[in-house]
Amino acid sequence: MIRVALVGQGLVALHFEVGLEKLRHNMISDYGVPLRNWLPYKYSDIEVVVSYDVDESKVGKTIYELAKKYYDSPGEIPGTLKDIVVKRGIHLNSLKGLPFKARGREEVEGYDSAVWSIIDEWKSLDVDVVVNVMTTEPVEPVGGLLELHERFKEGDLTASQTYAYMAAIYSSKYKSAAFINCIPSPLANDQAYVDLYRESRGVLFGDDGSTGATPLTTDLLEHLYERNRRVIDIAQFNIGGNTDFLSLSLPERNVMKKITKSAMVSDILGYEAPNYIRPTGYLEPLGDKKFVAMIIEYYSFGEFKDELYIAWRVNDSPALAGLLVDLVRLGKIALDRQHYGTVYEVNAFYMKKPGPPGSRVISKYKAFQELLKWIGVRDPRY
Amino acid sequence: MIRVALVGQGLVALHFEVGLEKLRHNMISDYGVPLRNWLPYKYSDIEVVVSYDVDESKVGKTIYELAKKYYDSPGEIPGTLKDIVVKRGIHLNSLKGLPFKARGREEVEGYDSAVWSIIDEWKSLDVDVVVNVMTTEPVEPVGGLLELHERFKEGDLTASQTYAYMAAIYSSKYKSAAFINCIPSPLANDQAYVDLYRESRGVLFGDDGSTGATPLTTDLLEHLYERNRRVIDIAQFNIGGNTDFLSLSLPERNVMKKITKSAMVSDILGYEAPNYIRPTGYLEPLGDKKFVAMIIEYYSFGEFKDELYIAWRVNDSPALAGLLVDLVRLGKIALDRQHYGTVYEVNAFYMKKPGPPGSRVISKYKAFQELLKWIGVRDPRY
Amino acid sequence: MIRVALVGQGLVALHFEVGLEKLRHNMISDYGVPLRNWLPYKYSDIEVVVSYDVDESKVGKTIYELAKKYYDSPGEIPGTLKDIVVKRGIHLNSLKGLPFKARGREEVEGYDSAVWSIIDEWKSLDVDVVVNVMTTEPVEPVGGLLELHERFKEGDLTASQTYAYMAAIYSSKYKSAAFINCIPSPLANDQAYVDLYRESRGVLFGDDGSTGATPLTTDLLEHLYERNRRVIDIAQFNIGGNTDFLSLSLPERNVMKKITKSAMVSDILGYEAPNYIRPTGYLEPLGDKKFVAMIIEYYSFGEFKDELYIAWRVNDSPALAGLLVDLVRLGKIALDRQHYGTVYEVNAFYMKKPGPPGSRVISKYKAFQELLKWIGVRDPRY
Amino acid sequence: MIRVALVGQGLVALHFEVGLEKLRHNMISDYGVPLRNWLPYKYSDIEVVVSYDVDESKVGKTIYELAKKYYDSPGEIPGTLKDIVVKRGIHLNSLKGLPFKARGREEVEGYDSAVWSIIDEWKSLDVDVVVNVMTTEPVEPVGGLLELHERFKEGDLTASQTYAYMAAIYSSKYKSAAFINCIPSPLANDQAYVDLYRESRGVLFGDDGSTGATPLTTDLLEHLYERNRRVIDIAQFNIGGNTDFLSLSLPERNVMKKITKSAMVSDILGYEAPNYIRPTGYLEPLGDKKFVAMIIEYYSFGEFKDELYIAWRVNDSPALAGLLVDLVRLGKIALDRQHYGTVYEVNAFYMKKPGPPGSRVISKYKAFQELLKWIGVRDPRY
Repeated sequence: MIRVALVGQGLVALHFEVGLEKLRHNMISDYGVPLRNWLPYKYSDIEVVVSYDVDESKVGKTIYELAKKYYDSPGEIPGTLKDIVVKRGIHLNSLKGLPFKARGREEVEGYDSAVWSIIDEWKSLDVDVVVNVMTTEPVEPVGGLLELHERFKEGDLTASQTYAYMAAIYSSKYKSAAFINCIPSPLANDQAYVDLYRESRGVLFGDDGSTGATPLTTDLLEHLYERNRRVIDIAQFNIGGNTDFLSLSLPERNVMKKITKSAMVSDILGYEAPNYIRPTGYLEPLGDKKFVAMIIEYYSFGEFKDELYIAWRVNDSPALAGLLVDLVRLGKIALDRQHYGTVYEVNAFYMKKPGPPGSRVISKYKAFQELLKWIGVRDPRY
Repeated sequence: MIRVALVGQGLVALHFEVGLEKLRHNMISDYGVPLRNWLPYKYSDIEVVVSYDVDESKVGKTIYELAKKYYDSPGEIPGTLKDIVVKRGIHLNSLKGLPFKARGREEVEGYDSAVWSIIDEWKSLDVDVVVNVMTTEPVEPVGGLLELHERFKEGDLTASQTYAYMAAIYSSKYKSAAFINCIPSPLANDQAYVDLYRESRGVLFGDDGSTGATPLTTDLLEHLYERNRRVIDIAQFNIGGNTDFLSLSLPERNVMKKITKSAMVSDILGYEAPNYIRPTGYLEPLGDKKFVAMIIEYYSFGEFKDELYIAWRVNDSPALAGLLVDLVRLGKIALDRQHYGTVYEVNAFYMKKPGPPGSRVISKYKAFQELLKWIGVRDPRY
Repeated sequence: MIRVALVGQGLVALHFEVGLEKLRHNMISDYGVPLRNWLPYKYSDIEVVVSYDVDESKVGKTIYELAKKYYDSPGEIPGTLKDIVVKRGIHLNSLKGLPFKARGREEVEGYDSAVWSIIDEWKSLDVDVVVNVMTTEPVEPVGGLLELHERFKEGDLTASQTYAYMAAIYSSKYKSAAFINCIPSPLANDQAYVDLYRESRGVLFGDDGSTGATPLTTDLLEHLYERNRRVIDIAQFNIGGNTDFLSLSLPERNVMKKITKSAMVSDILGYEAPNYIRPTGYLEPLGDKKFVAMIIEYYSFGEFKDELYIAWRVNDSPALAGLLVDLVRLGKIALDRQHYGTVYEVNAFYMKKPGPPGSRVISKYKAFQELLKWIGVRDPRY
Repeated sequence: MIRVALVGQGLVALHFEVGLEKLRHNMISDYGVPLRNWLPYKYSDIEVVVSYDVDESKVGKTIYELAKKYYDSPGEIPGTLKDIVVKRGIHLNSLKGLPFKARGREEVEGYDSAVWSIIDEWKSLDVDVVVNVMTTEPVEPVGGLLELHERFKEGDLTASQTYAYMAAIYSSKYKSAAFINCIPSPLANDQAYVDLYRESRGVLFGDDGSTGATPLTTDLLEHLYERNRRVIDIAQFNIGGNTDFLSLSLPERNVMKKITKSAMVSDILGYEAPNYIRPTGYLEPLGDKKFVAMIIEYYSFGEFKDELYIAWRVNDSPALAGLLVDLVRLGKIALDRQHYGTVYEVNAFYMKKPGPPGSRVISKYKAFQELLKWIGVRDPRY
C-alpha cells in the first residue's frame, strides 16, 4: 500500500480523491493517468489517509461532504470518502489576500506544537507520500542547508517550505517518505531542499505540476524546432474561474508562474523568441474549465510566415489529479529504489520547472521516453 | 555535388529552386530545413539540373521566367535560375480533368522514345536524385515485380510509376540514383518498386511528403497518448487555392489522400478514434496559403471532456520545398552508404505514408530521433 | 390556446416539446426565444397536440418515452409529455437512403385514406399550427397552382409538399391554419404554395429555419459591409453527429442546403465574394453539438488584409426549437390578422431562405427591426 | 476643401495621410471607408495641411520621409506627402513613461506662447478640422466650464484637453472648426467641453475611435440579444506590438480603456454579464497587426450551453485611418449645418464611448442606420 497525505484540500485534491476511489472500484476508466497500468503498483495500492487545509469551511469535514457540495449528482460519490477527514494544517499566511476565512494550526496551538503534532499524525497513519497541492504562494529559494535549518527553527518559511521540511524530518526520524510539490514554490529547485532530502533519505519531486497550456506549448515548440521553423513570437493567454486563477490575479503570486515559464521557450528552441505567456485573468463563471488562447507565428522555408492559432477548453484540476495517480506511485518506486534526493527523469515529464536546480526544460516527448527508460517499462506500441 | 532532376514544375518545385539558390548565395536563412547544416553535404552541394512538366505554358521556359510571373518583386530572383529549363515530360494523363493544356513527350514522339530520351538526358546531366512533385494522381500499387516489368513495357503505368521505373533503369544501367516520391502514389509502399530499387542499386524514398496538418496532428495525438487522454473524435478541415487543392476536388484524386491518412490515428493512439480528416475544399483566393481547422475532443482524468481547437494559416508549397533540401541530401547519403531499396528511418519523418509496405506511422518526435540516429548526428541541444 | 401539430419527431421536435413544457411550468428561463414575453400570446397558450413520424421505433410512443431515452436525468422530464403520442405520418420516401426502418401511413392504408385521415385528426384536435421539422429531403418548386393540384391528386409530391397541401385543404375546409416550414424544401419559395395559401385563407412561413452558422455569417458580413471592408473570401465548415448531418452526407440532400445559402453572400455584400459554405461532414460522437469553423479574409483601409477566424460549438436542435416558440405564436398572430399567404417580415428573421419567391436575404439585425415593426412591439432598450 | 490638422504623428496619422493621398490619386480602392462615396464631400476635397508631434525623431520631418522609413516599397509613396511637415506640438507629459525622446513646444517657448502660436498656425493654414490621434493619456473629465477655463489658463490640462480647448478658442475667434477625438480621453464625454464647443460654435466628436474588437463585440452581443441567448461570460484578449499597446502596458494608461469598455456589455444586453475585456499585452514582433482572442459562452433554448471562439488578426492603425476619412467629412458637414456642440449620431457609430455624457452604447448596426438617417443618405441595397 502507498499511504498518501494531501496538503491543500482544493479542487485538485478533490478530483484526485474522488477519481482515485472511482478507479479503485472500476467506476471509471484511467484516462489522464499517463503510466496507466504499466507500473508495479496498482490503483488499488494507493490510499489517501489524511488531508490538510486551513480554510475554516473545510477543516473537520469529510471528503464525502466536500464532494457532495461540488458535484451535481451526489449519488456517484464513493461512500469510502466518508473515512477521510480534513485536518487543520499549517497556515503561515499562505492564503493572505484571498477571500477565505483561514486559521492555521500554529495559530491555535503554537508553531512548534503544530509542526510536531502533524509529524506525529503522519507517523501514526504510516504515511509514505505527502502531496503539496495548496494555492500558489510567493516564495524564494533558501539556497543553503544551514540557513534552511535556522529558518525552520524560527518559523520563517512559507507553508510549502515548512511542510517539505517536516516531511524530511519524518523521513530521517521514522520512515523514508516522498514529498511531491505540485505548486510553483521552488523546492526541488532549491539546492537546500535537494540536499536535505538526500541526507534525510527522502524523495522530493517538483516543482509545479505540468498541466494546462505549458506542456502542450513545449511540444508544439519541439515540433517547430524539429522542422527548423523560426518562431517569431508566441502569445498565450489563460483565463479561468477557480481559486488558482483568483490567487494569480494577485501580482505577487502571479510572478511565481512567470518564473516557471520563462526558461521553457529558449530551452526548447535554442534561442530567445519574443513571448507573452502568463495566466491572464480571472472570470468566475468559467469555473474550473479554463480557456487558453495562443498564437504562434513562425518562418517557414523561404522565410514565408505561417500562423498557428489554438483555443483550448480544458478542465484544470482533473488534469493535475490524473498526474498525481502516477506521481504517488513513482514516489513509492523511488523510495523502494532508495533513490533519495530528487529524480530529474520524473520531474522532467511531470513538472513545469523540473528540479534539481539548473535543470533544463526538455520537450515532454523527450521527457516521456526518458521517464519510461528510468522506470524500466516499454511503450507497448513499439 | 548532388545533381537533381525535378518532375512536376509546380509551386513546390519553384519554391525549392528559388529557395535553394537563395540559400546557396546566403540571401535567406535556412528556416524550414529540418537538418539544417548538420549534414556532410552543404546547400551549395545541391544543384538542380533539369525540370520536367507537360503544361504547355511551362515547357521550354526557364525557372527564372516562371519565378518572375509568380513573385511580386522580381529583383530578388537569383539570375542563376536562367540556366534551368523546363523540359517536356511524360504525361500519361496525369493532368486529366484539370484545367491545363497538357501534352506529354510520349504524345510527340511515342512512348518508347520518350522514356529513353529522358533517361539519356539524365545520363548526360549526370543526375543523382529525381524528385517527384507532380500533381496527385489516382493510382494503385502494382504489387509484383513481374507485373511491373510487363506494365512498364506496355506503357500501362501512371506518370509517377513510369518515372520511378525509369530512375531504376538509370540506376541499374548507368549510375545509382535516388527517387524521392513526395506525392501520395504508392511507390515506397509498393513491394514491386521496393524490390526493383534494391535490385537496381537505387534508393527510393516515399510516399507523400509530410507537410500540412498531418505531421502536427500526429504529434498532437502523441501528446495526448502520452497523457493517456482518450480521444473522442477528431475533425480536420483543409482548404486552399493551389493546384493541389483544385486536383483534390476531383473525387478520384481525393481518395488518394484519405488512404494516406487513414492509418495514422490508430497507429499513434493504439485504438480507433472516430475521425473526419481530409482535404475539404478549393477556394481560389486563398492561393498557396491554406487554412486548416481542427477540433479534437478527449477525456481527461475523471472522464471530464476537454476540447482543443486549432486554426492554421500555412504556406503550403514552401513547407515541402524545405523538406526537399534535406531529402536530396539524404538520398545522396543513402547512395553513398549503398543503402539500396528504401529507408524507413527517412520515410518515417519526411513522409505521410512511410514505406516499405506494412510500416506503421509513428509520431514525428519519435521519427526525428530515429532519423538522427540513422544519420549519426547528435541534436546539439543535448 | 394555440394548438400545434408537429411533423417529424426528431431532436428539434423533442427539444421544442420538452422545452415548452418546462417553460410553461417555469422550470427554465426562456433563453433562446427571441421575442420572449413581448407577444400577446404567452408560453402557456401553446399546446402540442400531436406529432407525426414514420420511423417504426417512434410511432405509437409518447414524447415522454422518447425523452426518457434521450436525456440523462429522466427525473426532469415533465410528466405532461405522456399525453402526446407520435402518430404514423406520410412517408413518400422522405427517409430513403437513411438507416431508419420507416413505414408511412400511405403504405398501410393507401394514399387517399392516409391524407384524409390525418386532416380529420387535425380537425378533431382543432389544430392551429402545423410545424414541419422533418429531415431534409430533395425537392424542386412546383411553380404553378394547376400543376400543384394535379400532382397532389396523383401523390406525386414529397412528404413536406404533401403536408403543406393538406394544411391548405384544412384551412379552406375547416379552419384557417398556419404551416411553418423549417426545412430547406421550397414552399414559401414556391409561388404555387404562396398562392394556394392565400386562396385557402392559410398562413405559410418558410423556408429553412435560420439557426447555426448562417445567421451569424449574415450579421458578420453586414458588419463588414457597414465598414466597407472588402471580403476576399469566406470558408465555412460544419460538422455534426445528428440525423441532419447524416442526411446531408447524401449528395442529393446536401444540394438543398447549397441552394439556400448561395444568395446570402451577394445579397448582403452587394457583390460576389468567393466562398465555400456548406455542411461538410458527419462525425457521430459530436452528436447534436456541432462544430463550425470559419475564416473570413477582407481588405481594410489602405488595402491591408485582415483575417477573422471563428470556431463555434453549438447545440444544433435546441436553437431551432427556441425559434419555434416564437413561430407558432407568430403564426397565430398572422391568422388573427387574416394575413394570409406568407409574411416576409417573419420569414426574413427566422428563415435562411425567406419567401415569397424572389425575396432578398437581409442581415438579421435589419430583419429583427422589421419584425418588431410588423408585430408592433418596441425593443425595451430604446 | 476640408483642411485638416493632425495631432499625434503616429501610425494612424501616417496611414491616414498616405491612404488619403492614394485615394485622391485613385491608387487604391476606398475599402475601410464606411460612407464611401455617399457623402457630398469627395476624397479629393480633403487636404492634410499640418501635423503635430513632440517626438524629436519626427519634428521637422515631412510625412514622405516618415513613410519611407515605415513602408517596405518606397516607390509607392505619393510625392505630395513631401509638402506636409511635422511641427512641434504641445507635450504636457503626454509621453511620460514611454521610451521616446520628447520635447513640447511649451518647453521651448513657454506655455502661453506655445498655445497661441499653434492657434495662429491654424489660422494661417485656414484649418477646418483638428484630429486627435495621440497616444492614450491618463485623464479625468473636468466637468464644469468655469473650472475648465481656470485650468486652461494655468496650463493644468492634459495635452488632448489643451488641444481641444485651443480648437474651441480658434472656433470662437476665427472660424468654426471641428475637433475629432479618437483617443479615450473624455472630451465629448466631458460636459464642460460639450458646453464649450456649443458656445464657441465648434463641433466636437468623440471619444475613442471605434476599431478593433470592441465594435465587433457590440455587434456579436446584439446578435445574441436578438435571439435572447443568455451570455454567461465574455473573455477578450488583445495583444499587439505598436505604441498604443506599449503605452497600455502602463497601468495608469490601461485604466482609460477599461472605463471606455465597461458600459458596453450591459448597455447592449440589458443585464450585467461577467466579462474580462481589456488590452492584455505588448509583444513587439506583432507590430501593428494585433491579435484578438475572444470566447463568449451563452445559454441557448433549454439552457443548453454554446461556446463561440474568435481569433482575429487585424491591422490596427489602418482601421482607424479609414474611419478618419469619414470623420473629417462629417465634421465639415456638421459645421455646414451649424450643428454645434457634439453629434450623438456620429459618435454612436464611430466612437467606443460616444458623447455627450450619459449616452448609451448601442449596437453598431443600429448606430449605422441612425447615422445614415442623420446624414440623409440611403443605403443603396434597400
